[in-house]
Amino acid sequence: MGTKEGEGPLGEAFDMVGEDDMFHSENWEAAESALQKKAMEIMMGKVNVAPGDIRYLFGGDLLGQSVATSFGLESFEIPLVGLYGACSTCGLALSLAAMTVAAGYSDLAAAVTSSHFASAEKQFRFPLEYANQRPLSTTWTVTGSGAFLLAGKEKTEELEGRVFPGKVVAEDDREMESRKWTKQYRVKITGVTTGRIIDYGVRDAMNMGAAMAPAAKDVIEAHLQDFGREPVYYDKIVTGDLGEIGRDILIDLLHGKGIDISENHTDCGLEIFDNKKQGTGSGGSGCACSAVTLSARFLPLLASGKLRRILFVPTGALLSKISFNEGQNVPGIAHAVVLEREED
Amino acid sequence: MGTKEGEGPLGEAFDMVGEDDMFHSENWEAAESALQKKAMEIMMGKVNVAPGDIRYLFGGDLLGQSVATSFGLESFEIPLVGLYGACSTCGLALSLAAMTVAAGYSDLAAAVTSSHFASAEKQFRFPLEYANQRPLSTTWTVTGSGAFLLAGKEKTEELEGRVFPGKVVAEDDREMESRKWTKQYRVKITGVTTGRIIDYGVRDAMNMGAAMAPAAKDVIEAHLQDFGREPVYYDKIVTGDLGEIGRDILIDLLHGKGIDISENHTDCGLEIFDNKKQGTGSGGSGCACSAVTLSARFLPLLASGKLRRILFVPTGALLSKISFNEGQNVPGIAHAVVLEREED
Repeated sequence: MGTKEGEGPLGEAFDMVGEDDMFHSENWEAAESALQKKAMEIMMGKVNVAPGDIRYLFGGDLLGQSVATSFGLESFEIPLVGLYGACSTCGLALSLAAMTVAAGYSDLAAAVTSSHFASAEKQFRFPLEYANQRPLSTTWTVTGSGAFLLAGKEKTEELEGRVFPGKVVAEDDREMESRKWTKQYRVKITGVTTGRIIDYGVRDAMNMGAAMAPAAKDVIEAHLQDFGREPVYYDKIVTGDLGEIGRDILIDLLHGKGIDISENHTDCGLEIFDNKKQGTGSGGSGCACSAVTLSARFLPLLASGKLRRILFVPTGALLSKISFNEGQNVPGIAHAVVLEREED
Repeated sequence: MGTKEGEGPLGEAFDMVGEDDMFHSENWEAAESALQKKAMEIMMGKVNVAPGDIRYLFGGDLLGQSVATSFGLESFEIPLVGLYGACSTCGLALSLAAMTVAAGYSDLAAAVTSSHFASAEKQFRFPLEYANQRPLSTTWTVTGSGAFLLAGKEKTEELEGRVFPGKVVAEDDREMESRKWTKQYRVKITGVTTGRIIDYGVRDAMNMGAAMAPAAKDVIEAHLQDFGREPVYYDKIVTGDLGEIGRDILIDLLHGKGIDISENHTDCGLEIFDNKKQGTGSGGSGCACSAVTLSARFLPLLASGKLRRILFVPTGALLSKISFNEGQNVPGIAHAVVLEREED
């Protein structure tokens, strides 16, 4: 994780926070690749698996041609499904990894996504050196990477029998708490609803929350209808990176459909930063925002039984520098994943 | 398809060739989106299905943040899995669509990819107006889009009972041959081997064939080993867009491993253009190259029984303008899909 994320409300919960945001790399793109590589290494270290044990890797990032993923993951030599869903990519990666494992195509599949504040600003907005002013509606791209391992039933039992190697420590890492990977960490994916592109005609690339909220509304509504559930079925409905403005729009849009999520909704973009203290505008954003908030905040809450089940809904805004400059809209997309604590 | 593709060896086999390469759009990116939209419409028209019948859509293109896909497919409102595998994306899309249908997650899934010569030149190389000289090793990005529909067994039988509506004609379309979609068009996907990133240190973005050949070698070797097959098991081994230079490298690399594919190998990049007459350098390339050569050339050969089974191996080069300018290598990736004629 980046330094700013380390200073935020979830700072103590991250496995690793860098000394600076370069992660010993020569440029921002390589720094983001280094984050993906580190996230994979920590994840594999926790359960003592080698890259060769993982049959499918689902990964993606925000950069053009997904270069953070290509150069971050190439050394593992795992069959790779490259994904692009903007900041919703974590939802897509978890969905496909779960579908792959559930169908028996692989006993182990990994999902990894990343974003980096500086590479994203360069890709979508302005060079950092230009020091442009940011409207309050802007979100702040999270610097970080989250990696997840999904295992089938038999493989889960096999992994539980392995002894966790103790500490996963690298040169520049915060020492990780030594903890055995035990059944209390068992959380399973029990459903997915893949979203479609929703275009409400928003053209403001400095207000991504407004661009993505209609897509979040669409997939949450579709999910509840398909599964015949009410919002209260979930202890939390956790969107990806709508921020303060997008959150309000989402709640209003669903209200208009007779769906009330105001009591149990939260947004990863609101969990990861203290917006007022940290000057992060409307909240955090980026592929990493939902990925690391799920792993550092919500998975432990599920594993410990403080939450029984959540609907995790990463959100993405579909634009490029070119499409924006050519006057295209900024449509949104969101993907819903049901995560439940596995009861003993 | 673009005009140049229409003048090539497969020209008569394409469902639609445009009057120019703008497809009534304002810019190259929008033209590429229009191609995806048209490919989907023609595909759905052939079997008389509506977008709402398709539960999963797997799509991607070469542009940063996959904008051709976002704006090409948004109007269909189908749950979308956005993919990035550079020019190998068609292999990834077909693999995931087949896996999704085979697992029973959907009875109908679609795979669509596109590329456009002008949007790709702008994205990766130089503006067309600059009129740079191209070394002979360069490949020529195919302007086009291919869309595929994958159906489960029951759904296939249901669709066969439907009457094909006759002609799919739009304002600017070549009139399509009126043909009923019958069992002779049944081709099935019976296996996939998902590739990993292979980096041989190539740094020449004007020689993609050399960058991608090692990845094609890796996935073909892995596929033959995993399935316990010899190259002669396939009537054709069809790579995506290696071109003349990449083809020779692939055959040599596999020779070094004791695998001889020289007799039954071909490359979509060599099928789609007449390189000498059309001045297309080493051959065709782009996501569309493998997609449309599969649909216009190899699917009919499979359906008619002239080929029984092929190994289809779209190939991709993983770079962006930024990664290239920052001095990164150009690694490759390739994904293998087994297509077989369904015997009566």
